[in-house]
Amino acid sequence: MGQFDENGGIYLNILKSGTVTTPRGFMAAAAAAHIKYADKKDLTLIVSENECAAAAVFTQNQVAAAPVIAGKETMQAHSGHIRAIVANAGNANASTGRPGLENARATQKMVADSLNIQPEQVLPLSTGVIGVQLPMDRMQAGIETAAGRLSADGGLEAAQAIMTTDTHPKHLAAQVELSGNTVTIGGMAKGSGMIHPNMATMLGVLTTDAQVEANLLDEMLRTAVSHSFNRISVDGDTSTNDTVILLANGASGVTITKAENIAVFQDALTYICTKLAHMIVRDGEGATKFVEIQVTGTKTEADAHAIANTIATSPLVKTAFAGSDANWGRILAAAGRAGIAFDQNQAALWIGGAAPDELQLVANGTPTNYEEADAAAIFARPEFKIRLDIGAGDAATIVWTTDLTHKYVSINADYRS
Amino acid sequence: MGQFDENGGIYLNILKSGTVTTPRGFMAAAAAAHIKYADKKDLTLIVSENECAAAAVFTQNQVAAAPVIAGKETMQAHSGHIRAIVANAGNANASTGRPGLENARATQKMVADSLNIQPEQVLPLSTGVIGVQLPMDRMQAGIETAAGRLSADGGLEAAQAIMTTDTHPKHLAAQVELSGNTVTIGGMAKGSGMIHPNMATMLGVLTTDAQVEANLLDEMLRTAVSHSFNRISVDGDTSTNDTVILLANGASGVTITKAENIAVFQDALTYICTKLAHMIVRDGEGATKFVEIQVTGTKTEADAHAIANTIATSPLVKTAFAGSDANWGRILAAAGRAGIAFDQNQAALWIGGAAPDELQLVANGTPTNYEEADAAAIFARPEFKIRLDIGAGDAATIVWTTDLTHKYVSINADYRS
Repeated sequence: MGQFDENGGIYLNILKSGTVTTPRGFMAAAAAAHIKYADKKDLTLIVSENECAAAAVFTQNQVAAAPVIAGKETMQAHSGHIRAIVANAGNANASTGRPGLENARATQKMVADSLNIQPEQVLPLSTGVIGVQLPMDRMQAGIETAAGRLSADGGLEAAQAIMTTDTHPKHLAAQVELSGNTVTIGGMAKGSGMIHPNMATMLGVLTTDAQVEANLLDEMLRTAVSHSFNRISVDGDTSTNDTVILLANGASGVTITKAENIAVFQDALTYICTKLAHMIVRDGEGATKFVEIQVTGTKTEADAHAIANTIATSPLVKTAFAGSDANWGRILAAAGRAGIAFDQNQAALWIGGAAPDELQLVANGTPTNYEEADAAAIFARPEFKIRLDIGAGDAATIVWTTDLTHKYVSINADYRS
Repeated sequence: MGQFDENGGIYLNILKSGTVTTPRGFMAAAAAAHIKYADKKDLTLIVSENECAAAAVFTQNQVAAAPVIAGKETMQAHSGHIRAIVANAGNANASTGRPGLENARATQKMVADSLNIQPEQVLPLSTGVIGVQLPMDRMQAGIETAAGRLSADGGLEAAQAIMTTDTHPKHLAAQVELSGNTVTIGGMAKGSGMIHPNMATMLGVLTTDAQVEANLLDEMLRTAVSHSFNRISVDGDTSTNDTVILLANGASGVTITKAENIAVFQDALTYICTKLAHMIVRDGEGATKFVEIQVTGTKTEADAHAIANTIATSPLVKTAFAGSDANWGRILAAAGRAGIAFDQNQAALWIGGAAPDELQLVANGTPTNYEEADAAAIFARPEFKIRLDIGAGDAATIVWTTDLTHKYVSINADYRS
């Protein structure tokens, strides 16, 4: 990511207020469909002026929501011809059976009719309460209102309208110069727990005006997601509705192929996804700390990920973060139960920022002679790193997580009551 | 477990105040070794008058504590000749490297010298802070004091002396008539998180005056543990020190073999382990609810366990328990991310006690027409069941867990500060 340093940034132009409508040829709008919220805009349309290649990554949850099922079907046959995304907040359309699936498909048709396109050119997204059927009359009204307001400035209200328990909209854009033209990638996301209290989901929508063939787009999106959205954990609970979609409409005139422009575009895409993922973690339910967990010295990246993820989801580790207690025994114990064999006498642990700001707490599996006050001072920071090396190989990974606080319990224990 | 119904109990005599010294030929004592605690007895000896067959189950954690390593070594060569168990609270002797392992072995030798037996006849247990070397002079003094106080009435103080954050000692015994004689099994355990805040561990010690060959004893202990201690979860964090040991000294004169008495003895052993496991869950850190999670209709028991365990460790499910919110969407969503394939349209969910006290919330993957108030009333109980059927097969399992409360966060975030 060095080339993307926002301070010394060399060729990536970061647009912090950029949105999904910053790339050329995209419009968006939102409407108050009163699905669950009284005042809030909760129905979003994102539309491309011309056909897009689309790529999507869906939740692995067996209890996949109806829009996930409908979206997968649509993608299988029509990923080269997508024109629009419709998203609603307030109702997940999950655990809704066959009527729910019919409602997801009807939603695609409503959007198609409003925009004079085909239903299979529309991808649906939902987030909200589980087990309640969508109010289709209100969906219809919301879709018509939003369709009448579509604008190239609509990206911000789109980012706002997909929020549920998020405390702020999450969006940005980035531009790179390729083949003598400017290519823009815009993105937005929502999510502040992996599942919200009966309010599902991490959603991400990315747009670009690059020209990319759908199979290559899929490959690039999977790479980007594996280094970003798949490396964050607020509470370990993946949702029934998690979806990330990327649309490429080619409006910039710049083509990305395996032979051409791919490295820069991939880096920019991964950068956008990583920044959005960080925004989700920082806005995690009840979170007061942003913690980067590096695991190094494993045989494979999958091993590193298994260990990092076990640390990141351990209630004891996360409450230690909350208590600003540099309780390294909990970190090692979590690593030790991740199902990956290693020799504890090779384990080493550092905390802090980047070296030389690091403080080594453990060497050869036993504590160093560090000062508790120094360790506590690092854990008291709003943002810090943990680096665990298990001395078994050359692979590594990074994940990002938060602390587990009283506020998390309050949000999730008290939400429906 | 029907034959063990405590109300209509037919042939199992439950001794609620029974301990590890209730079986014939066992003595115990505790001493204040001042390992961490100022006043509390924290050093325990359990001794058999004659050689025991021993079986033990140790933590799978890669960061195994020194007493686990030493105990495994001892068991490999000498499981037919064990005489004593030594346990200390206040120091886990974990992440202590080679000096820690030497201290564990020295502890075995101190006990052997005090009792005039061999070091390899002693099994060591530790629970407490991680990363601190045992104070061997205080261990020595404690061992000598305890050895001088050994008594057939010492079981209760043994159960008290292994406590760390436990709020009460956990122990019981059971008797069965076999081959015309009374066979007694006694047990004690500690643990109120899977790991305590820098205070490790679930420990269990079981004694019996039956005569059992070590290999068969091992088989029976593994069966009992797989139905009891391995089915509980307070926070999902398995510790560096978890150990369950069973000693059989034959003092009753009754022999258990594959051909003789095995079924009744196994049931009694599983019963004792299950009761101790329930005591640990009920005393879970900050717990206000005791929840039984049944998962049925899976292809294999392992599938059922994977799903039940994911539900039992989901922060969103556990906070819903805490909030008395019958938020079934979280339960289904947790089941759906357990890594086990199933058709959500076959899923059914009940809550309550035993049928007909059950209330069905979900049928065919979608909500039934239940009343929210009825569901909330069940979740408000201090003890209730969840039953999830996924309609994929005939296998099933049960696990027991607690809620995730503000008090859990307080205990674990504020402990060391």
